[in-house]
Amino acid sequence: MDKIKNLALLIDLYELTMAAAYYEHSMYEPATFSLFIRNYPPSRRYFVSAGLADVLDYLEGFKFSADDLEYLEKKKLFNPKFLSYLEKLRFKGDVYALPEGRLFFANEPLLEVTASLIEAQMVETFIINAINLQALIATKASRCVHAAWPKKLVDFSLRRTHGIDAGLKVARASFIGGFIGTSNVLAGKIYGLPIFGTMAHSYISSFKKEIDAFRAFAQTFPENTILLVDTYDTLSGAAKASEVGREMQQRGEKLKGVRLDSGNMALLSKRVRKILQKAGLQEATIFASGGFDEYKIHKVLQEGGDVDSFGVGTKMGVSADAPYFDMAYKLVEYAGRPLMKLSPGKMTLVGEKQIFRFTNSKGKLERDAIGLRDDNIKRGESLLMKVMEKGKTVVRMPSLPEIQKIFLDEFSRLDDKYKSLKGGMEEYPVHLSPRLERLQAQVMDKLKENELGESRG
Amino acid sequence: MDKIKNLALLIDLYELTMAAAYYEHSMYEPATFSLFIRNYPPSRRYFVSAGLADVLDYLEGFKFSADDLEYLEKKKLFNPKFLSYLEKLRFKGDVYALPEGRLFFANEPLLEVTASLIEAQMVETFIINAINLQALIATKASRCVHAAWPKKLVDFSLRRTHGIDAGLKVARASFIGGFIGTSNVLAGKIYGLPIFGTMAHSYISSFKKEIDAFRAFAQTFPENTILLVDTYDTLSGAAKASEVGREMQQRGEKLKGVRLDSGNMALLSKRVRKILQKAGLQEATIFASGGFDEYKIHKVLQEGGDVDSFGVGTKMGVSADAPYFDMAYKLVEYAGRPLMKLSPGKMTLVGEKQIFRFTNSKGKLERDAIGLRDDNIKRGESLLMKVMEKGKTVVRMPSLPEIQKIFLDEFSRLDDKYKSLKGGMEEYPVHLSPRLERLQAQVMDKLKENELGESRG
Repeated sequence: MDKIKNLALLIDLYELTMAAAYYEHSMYEPATFSLFIRNYPPSRRYFVSAGLADVLDYLEGFKFSADDLEYLEKKKLFNPKFLSYLEKLRFKGDVYALPEGRLFFANEPLLEVTASLIEAQMVETFIINAINLQALIATKASRCVHAAWPKKLVDFSLRRTHGIDAGLKVARASFIGGFIGTSNVLAGKIYGLPIFGTMAHSYISSFKKEIDAFRAFAQTFPENTILLVDTYDTLSGAAKASEVGREMQQRGEKLKGVRLDSGNMALLSKRVRKILQKAGLQEATIFASGGFDEYKIHKVLQEGGDVDSFGVGTKMGVSADAPYFDMAYKLVEYAGRPLMKLSPGKMTLVGEKQIFRFTNSKGKLERDAIGLRDDNIKRGESLLMKVMEKGKTVVRMPSLPEIQKIFLDEFSRLDDKYKSLKGGMEEYPVHLSPRLERLQAQVMDKLKENELGESRG
Repeated sequence: MDKIKNLALLIDLYELTMAAAYYEHSMYEPATFSLFIRNYPPSRRYFVSAGLADVLDYLEGFKFSADDLEYLEKKKLFNPKFLSYLEKLRFKGDVYALPEGRLFFANEPLLEVTASLIEAQMVETFIINAINLQALIATKASRCVHAAWPKKLVDFSLRRTHGIDAGLKVARASFIGGFIGTSNVLAGKIYGLPIFGTMAHSYISSFKKEIDAFRAFAQTFPENTILLVDTYDTLSGAAKASEVGREMQQRGEKLKGVRLDSGNMALLSKRVRKILQKAGLQEATIFASGGFDEYKIHKVLQEGGDVDSFGVGTKMGVSADAPYFDMAYKLVEYAGRPLMKLSPGKMTLVGEKQIFRFTNSKGKLERDAIGLRDDNIKRGESLLMKVMEKGKTVVRMPSLPEIQKIFLDEFSRLDDKYKSLKGGMEEYPVHLSPRLERLQAQVMDKLKENELGESRG
């Protein structure tokens, strides 16, 4: 699970049928595909880039195994010559991409692949799958971080993420979006993330008395005791936890905190704080979990909830209010011809492109321009970097803490009006460069003339 | 990816900290945990069981690797004796479960694990993760199947599922829910599912003229040509596809169909049908894709859309209107003591249980009872089967076509009022057996007395 290999068959069948037709018609010219998100979900006005590391790993290892080819042979859809071609196929293309942790906006190309048509087409499904999920989660996580700031958040979503791979990727992407760690031990191992966790309700229930459960845990983990207090009743649980906290103090130990997992969090957290303080446990922290997302965090804090950190699970881990992005990977140039499709609501921006970002003198994000890659646009920062050349990664991949830092820095320079929890916010200004706009119009006119018999006449 | 192994660390850290405390206090008595969904999402009134096969695989292979233990040692949270204990730990418990493809309802236990406390607790996260996702998707897919019946549906979701594992599991679970196959080639290989797919817009764009792209494809796949007609304009595309269809007829071949991927589907499908029929292509089918789910399928068919089959992608693959279930795995008995928690809105049903299903003389589902496992309830079908004993699977796992058949048969016997696409439908009747109800009340009274000092007086 930690190495991406033998995934060449993780494609839609049409990648193979198209490839077979290209092969038969000797269509090997270079093609460029662009990855972008068409529209904002109602409650989003920015996106966070994440998932690039997996894409580069996948492209470097792209290869059909003997077993894969045997399966395809049995399907009797393809001729043996084409299957021999697939056997030798590797990804040898170039990739330009937005580094992980950077912000991007609707219609901006966050990744462009240039390769022989078959190679560039074949990797479509994996690229969308990998980046869509991690950008989705990094974006959702960043909203939770914004709502909770400066309180700390921990990923608790593993049990409800969509499968195993999502469990790992959510831990990674939520860390990029500003979380401090995860409950997911395998993600801790694979990605080197801090891991968190103490006990469940079942732990409390398995003891004859709640206070026995608390004492046993404090004995086993004198340095890492956060007691779950809501199994029977939060206030009575907090009183028992305080008793155990005092016992720990007498032994020269320290109760790290308590966890609340149900009920009116604003009210209960304030009352629990009083119970802890009355017992002289000033340093014990209050950790809250149970159905949190940016909306519930905001509400509890608005109501004066006295919480030090939150466990954020399901709703972040599936991005419940926006569980997918309308992310597409579209052919924009083939054999030197800039291309687009005209399907209603699904138009694409032609050619090899670049994003240019303009900031003001204080570093605040002002606007972006989408231009052609060879546009010479002054003062704008060019965001897409060449990350792969002829199938080999040509940049050092930053560590996750570095990526998080890149994100938190840029996020702090994005105006809060784009981070609102309500829908209907205004959009960040993104315009097309004059050269891209002209090319776009030319290609459209030509296509309409060629395919629909329309001319500007 | 196709074998579930080395996933012992795919847990929440608290499974390990609890286990360490149990180990230190010699708590090895048998424990029973129950898996269930607490509440219906607004637009659901039934659930479809799926994912059991993965759980049994995982339990049989449960084992910490040397590498896992080395990682845990480095975290310095656990003492060496406990890590040696983990090294030898295997899952040796018993499992009762609802077979895949069966319907179930809120609060019904669909799986119960009885094992030594540490073993039973340690497998919580994986069990929820595996069954939550597949039940979620099988349920969502079944709603699409119901809305489309008797039109055929194909899973097109791979690019937007939450990661790789979800891509595979969605293909499997949507097949259980009545889909006829998937575009996902790796899922085809792993699960033996029928695979579908022909071409994308990029294929069309890469040719100088749309009709050249159509002709090239028909030449490469004379027996499997479905032409995508909306790249520039659906009606003009359909006219060109018909021209190619006639050319194929003259060669003694047959155009299999056309695919529509955008625009007003009801209107366009009717017009495209006329174009095809006028060209003498009576047998060409119309395949529709692009943002479909049960709601859009229903709308297009209501409006008289003339579609033979649908490609259903993103919204099914992430269960967009209900992207998670409130699924929980709770301790219900330990060392012979029936247990529950009292947290508001999160109460559990105590003890080892069974679901009893009552049907009328025509086989229609009438009501269910949740009882104790040793309840003697006449006329009710006992749904939970013993599927694992002492860590070994003791039943033959049915094939996916067999599971689909089990599902489609029972689904046809569930009243349509529970399948409505609107929210607010009535709930299927589920009551507790008298013995379970009595035990539930006794345990609650005792807990309140013990923990809260309350007594019935």
